[in-house]
Amino acid sequence: MMNRRPKVVVLGGGFAGLAFCKEFGDPGADVLLVDRQNHHLFQPLLYQVATAGLSAPEIAQPLRSILSDRPNVRVRLGEVQDIQPDRRVVLVDGIEESYDFLVFALGGRTSYFGHPAWEEFAPGLKSLEDAQRIRRDVLLAFEHAENSTDEAERRRNMTIAVIGGGPTGVELAGAFVELARHVLRDDFRSIDPRKARVVLIEGGTRLLGQFPADLGDNARETLETMGVEVRCGVRVKNLSRNRVELEGGEVIEAGNIVWAAGVAASGLTSKLGAPLDRAGRVQVAPDLSVPVHPEIFVVGDACGIVDRDGQVVPGVSPAAMQAGRHVASILKAEISGHPDREPFDYWDKGSMATIGRSAAVANLGGLHLTGLLAWLGWLFVHLVFLIGFRNRVAVLWQWFYSYVTYKRGARIILGVRE
Amino acid sequence: MMNRRPKVVVLGGGFAGLAFCKEFGDPGADVLLVDRQNHHLFQPLLYQVATAGLSAPEIAQPLRSILSDRPNVRVRLGEVQDIQPDRRVVLVDGIEESYDFLVFALGGRTSYFGHPAWEEFAPGLKSLEDAQRIRRDVLLAFEHAENSTDEAERRRNMTIAVIGGGPTGVELAGAFVELARHVLRDDFRSIDPRKARVVLIEGGTRLLGQFPADLGDNARETLETMGVEVRCGVRVKNLSRNRVELEGGEVIEAGNIVWAAGVAASGLTSKLGAPLDRAGRVQVAPDLSVPVHPEIFVVGDACGIVDRDGQVVPGVSPAAMQAGRHVASILKAEISGHPDREPFDYWDKGSMATIGRSAAVANLGGLHLTGLLAWLGWLFVHLVFLIGFRNRVAVLWQWFYSYVTYKRGARIILGVRE
Repeated sequence: MMNRRPKVVVLGGGFAGLAFCKEFGDPGADVLLVDRQNHHLFQPLLYQVATAGLSAPEIAQPLRSILSDRPNVRVRLGEVQDIQPDRRVVLVDGIEESYDFLVFALGGRTSYFGHPAWEEFAPGLKSLEDAQRIRRDVLLAFEHAENSTDEAERRRNMTIAVIGGGPTGVELAGAFVELARHVLRDDFRSIDPRKARVVLIEGGTRLLGQFPADLGDNARETLETMGVEVRCGVRVKNLSRNRVELEGGEVIEAGNIVWAAGVAASGLTSKLGAPLDRAGRVQVAPDLSVPVHPEIFVVGDACGIVDRDGQVVPGVSPAAMQAGRHVASILKAEISGHPDREPFDYWDKGSMATIGRSAAVANLGGLHLTGLLAWLGWLFVHLVFLIGFRNRVAVLWQWFYSYVTYKRGARIILGVRE
Repeated sequence: MMNRRPKVVVLGGGFAGLAFCKEFGDPGADVLLVDRQNHHLFQPLLYQVATAGLSAPEIAQPLRSILSDRPNVRVRLGEVQDIQPDRRVVLVDGIEESYDFLVFALGGRTSYFGHPAWEEFAPGLKSLEDAQRIRRDVLLAFEHAENSTDEAERRRNMTIAVIGGGPTGVELAGAFVELARHVLRDDFRSIDPRKARVVLIEGGTRLLGQFPADLGDNARETLETMGVEVRCGVRVKNLSRNRVELEGGEVIEAGNIVWAAGVAASGLTSKLGAPLDRAGRVQVAPDLSVPVHPEIFVVGDACGIVDRDGQVVPGVSPAAMQAGRHVASILKAEISGHPDREPFDYWDKGSMATIGRSAAVANLGGLHLTGLLAWLGWLFVHLVFLIGFRNRVAVLWQWFYSYVTYKRGARIILGVRE
């Protein structure tokens, strides 16, 4: 036991970091939560901001507000620049913060599989700023198409390519095609938005590779019925401005290209003195600590772990929350003088992806749902877990309104001419 | 009568331009509406976006969506660069658009009374981008104060100066002080947001100069009770970064300075070949047309007119809407071959300004209301006139939630580290 109150530094206020803070309470220790954003983001709905369904504040809550009832938790808005495990300090915006325990929860970032130059042509979707930029650029492309007299330019502006057929890619493609065919249908005079092309490109042989095959097939059929062109089993050879070149020679000219293909762990994982896997995730001990630094824990998307059933723990929010709570329990016990480092055990509650209006797929421990039933399940789960009561009601209202009217609440172009 | 369908070009999709489009219908003419934004903005609530009460899409509706049921109205997203009345063309993003009738509804912009350099230090509040920038900078200043160890720097970051004691300045000052003293109260550990300073500066002898004196006095008392420091009868001598120098020698160091003091008409009014008043407004004929160009009309904040009762028409949204509808009636008749150029007659329904939670002032044709009653009236009027059903419900919900919980829905810092 120490004579002063121990200090826990938590890096990242996503699902993992926040679950830690909530569960940790005050066992006689202080917590410093560092994040580069002032808000916790409900990432599963980020695609709805990108597709003009929700506004940014509807899926975000200020971290300070969530933690205002925790006097032992300080929130620091800042960028983590360095971690020095041997000195037990982190560098935040040029200022050193020391720690007794470190919880690394910095999550993931978009990975371009060794082609960092592609980021310029195909933005990823990790932050609210990303989502707002995609929304603006997609809406502006329709405006350009309306003003254009050149047929090729018009067609290009009305084409959206989504790269990556995982849940995010499927959700984006479905929402974009609905935006064009239903929401924008009557809004233009020179163009017919129903003729917009949405192309979904997946390198693997089918969509939703982490789901059972029948659900991936169902997603593909549903998307194709909605009007999405799906390309599976074909990789991107090159990306340049408004241009996707596929292996095999097909070229897609697209006014907007969105990258939903890869996620890698934060680059700061390399500072932890631990082995990393190919995606940069930290290979932690069974209790989620770093082998040579038992005072450092890694939770969330930066954590690469196989749990005691031999299951690979996926980078989804329930896993992140479970990991955050697991580490909180360990540290609470340790600080109270009863160290007990249980191994982490992931409880897979199932996975879901929404495809569009009244369509989704869900895999709930062997039970495969599709269509309306899966969609209602998706709606229910997301409303239950959406943090913050106010947002829940506002989002439910938005969805109800959009469902009935086919209008979307957030079709506002911001920041065009600043 | 012409052989082809006449073409009306409307510049600006604010209250005046949109009221024109709605009222005009289709008397056998085509309308082109040009705006630099894709949305109509409910400007009376813009201060709520700046003070983190509402999100941007909640007070904006896409112009295309509002006008989707008007097949004869085209919307063009673009910047008006030039107007050539003699050739009857306008230049929009480098492309000429010809017109038979022109409705100039470009509104106002922030005026710094001959000190354009001050804009850098004290942003005005005219667009959603302005409001989001102010919100971000005010929230960031509290973050800086929390991290700072220098007492003077901390105090500066916790000071907001609002320049201009008209309705916008009063509304901003009231909302800022509530943000600091109630909404942010429990969110910080090193600073006490209740110690934040909000200073409201007005060059005239009292607040709300366009309202009766008793209402201006009431606004001042209410603001002072809420904790705002009000300075009347003192002008700004100089502005620089984070520093307001007043005549008389007082210096206010403020992390945020917001300019709500002056409005001038769009600079394009000078292209219309008509006399302008001191604020750059066009001195129109009684029917709102430009004297030497009866095919050009000016409506909204760019229009400087005294109506037939000798009343100066104020730059408020009801006057803008009435003017837009007036011109629509004139042109409908003219295009149908029954020219009848009635003079414009402004019907003053009264004016209101909100001060804070449960406090407002209202002048309704001689009836002076203050306090809760005025506030309820303000709430009712703004909900009734808020364009678009979806927004209305969402905004009502937000207000109800904020009222009950003292939380605000849009306390999200965006675009810090792009």
